[in-house]
Amino acid sequence: MHFHEARLRVRYAETDQMGVVYHANYLVWMEVGRVEFCRSRGLRYRDLETGAQVRLAVVEANCRYLTPARYDDEVIVKAWVEEAHPRMVRFGYEMRNADPEAGPVLATGHTKHIFLGADMKPRKLPEAYRSIFSVGPRVDP
Amino acid sequence: MHFHEARLRVRYAETDQMGVVYHANYLVWMEVGRVEFCRSRGLRYRDLETGAQVRLAVVEANCRYLTPARYDDEVIVKAWVEEAHPRMVRFGYEMRNADPEAGPVLATGHTKHIFLGADMKPRKLPEAYRSIFSVGPRVDP
Amino acid sequence: MHFHEARLRVRYAETDQMGVVYHANYLVWMEVGRVEFCRSRGLRYRDLETGAQVRLAVVEANCRYLTPARYDDEVIVKAWVEEAHPRMVRFGYEMRNADPEAGPVLATGHTKHIFLGADMKPRKLPEAYRSIFSVGPRVDP
Amino acid sequence: MHFHEARLRVRYAETDQMGVVYHANYLVWMEVGRVEFCRSRGLRYRDLETGAQVRLAVVEANCRYLTPARYDDEVIVKAWVEEAHPRMVRFGYEMRNADPEAGPVLATGHTKHIFLGADMKPRKLPEAYRSIFSVGPRVDP
Repeated sequence: MHFHEARLRVRYAETDQMGVVYHANYLVWMEVGRVEFCRSRGLRYRDLETGAQVRLAVVEANCRYLTPARYDDEVIVKAWVEEAHPRMVRFGYEMRNADPEAGPVLATGHTKHIFLGADMKPRKLPEAYRSIFSVGPRVDP
Repeated sequence: MHFHEARLRVRYAETDQMGVVYHANYLVWMEVGRVEFCRSRGLRYRDLETGAQVRLAVVEANCRYLTPARYDDEVIVKAWVEEAHPRMVRFGYEMRNADPEAGPVLATGHTKHIFLGADMKPRKLPEAYRSIFSVGPRVDP
Repeated sequence: MHFHEARLRVRYAETDQMGVVYHANYLVWMEVGRVEFCRSRGLRYRDLETGAQVRLAVVEANCRYLTPARYDDEVIVKAWVEEAHPRMVRFGYEMRNADPEAGPVLATGHTKHIFLGADMKPRKLPEAYRSIFSVGPRVDP
Repeated sequence: MHFHEARLRVRYAETDQMGVVYHANYLVWMEVGRVEFCRSRGLRYRDLETGAQVRLAVVEANCRYLTPARYDDEVIVKAWVEEAHPRMVRFGYEMRNADPEAGPVLATGHTKHIFLGADMKPRKLPEAYRSIFSVGPRVDP
């Protein structure tokens, strides 16, 4: 049941000459959503890297683009954990326009991560952090 | 049987503090591969936009990250058409290090596109361009 | 005397393998500061483009990097108008860490812009918008 | 008298909704020019970081935008050393369209760098590398 909604404003730098947001930038927004999800659960991702020396390496990313986001739109990035075990976590995302009149969902996606140690080799997530990534049931928007 | 291999050099700007290429940049590399695939088939994508007023809008993107690419690596982006019909084209990609000693594949992925007209609404690809996107069988690396 | 302070959170995507923010991203942050300055003065830059069909084209950008910004830092982007006349506006910027203990200024810079019409040719800014860009005296931080 | 010309192709990702290249990307192109200048002088910048543990940190960047670069343009980035001493190097850049009919220069700029050690503190460039950055006279295009 845990999810978090982060907000961001579309930057001019994120648009392309089609007049909409360039598609790779949605993956950056997922990063924002993921990091803010962690913060809402009490974890600064920065501390995981510098303290526990654990990194979340992306092993798969997927995005479905439904409605184009546009310059200066305020976007809500909803993030939740879809699946997790000691060596892996998979996040789900839904991005929508903060303006309720702006219509339906912009995009949905997911990213799958493994945990790496300081040596950049796969490792288990230390026990102390496991509750943060506990799997929550999919929450319908 | 058609595929094309584009080459690019990893930019410092594309790395992140994990010391490897930030994952969203692989989608940009897929764009490079896709555009060079088109060029190798006789189509400047620019001309499709400015001439025929047709745009390829990304409706889905996927990437699996196998081995991290690093700064200054020369990367080969292999691109081919996995599926195509008058309203849609799906590209496949494989990215590997140009240095054959650098080991296995960096990443694989695909992007799915629909064709849009100048009004940004879905349309069929004009006949004249269809042969460019003819489906080729998957070519094993 | 008019200035505005926008806030943003450093994204992982903005770091590079030196472990700090890649320098080109400060120009994107200046864009954020400039746009929020305009909003604070009653102008959505989007409306200037879509309504008045006026664009601010960057003709010069400059940045001095004093202290590296790091991942997850909260950054304050202070923006003000340094100089303006009907064909040109020059913004000044100062970026600092929102954490007062984080020390001194991260970077300072400026961007110089001309106004372009829908035909992408230089034009005067319409009278109605001139008060927004009125020059304010430099405000010391 | 030493300069180097690198070539790159404008990516769709680098454009913005004004239909031209977003201005911050020129700083990335300068990076490409700088790195290829070093390579032409026998230095892989990567080796400077991993071998000698020396980094070039940008302390100032400047760009003047003269003619907008557009999607799919081939761009030549000319780079040279404007000034250098054991603690600092300043590069000059000129970016132009590879198509001689495309007209004049796209942009000019410079970046100023100091050398950092593994501890991220300023240091002198080791003697062995100094000849690479020897100052050359400005070469008119």
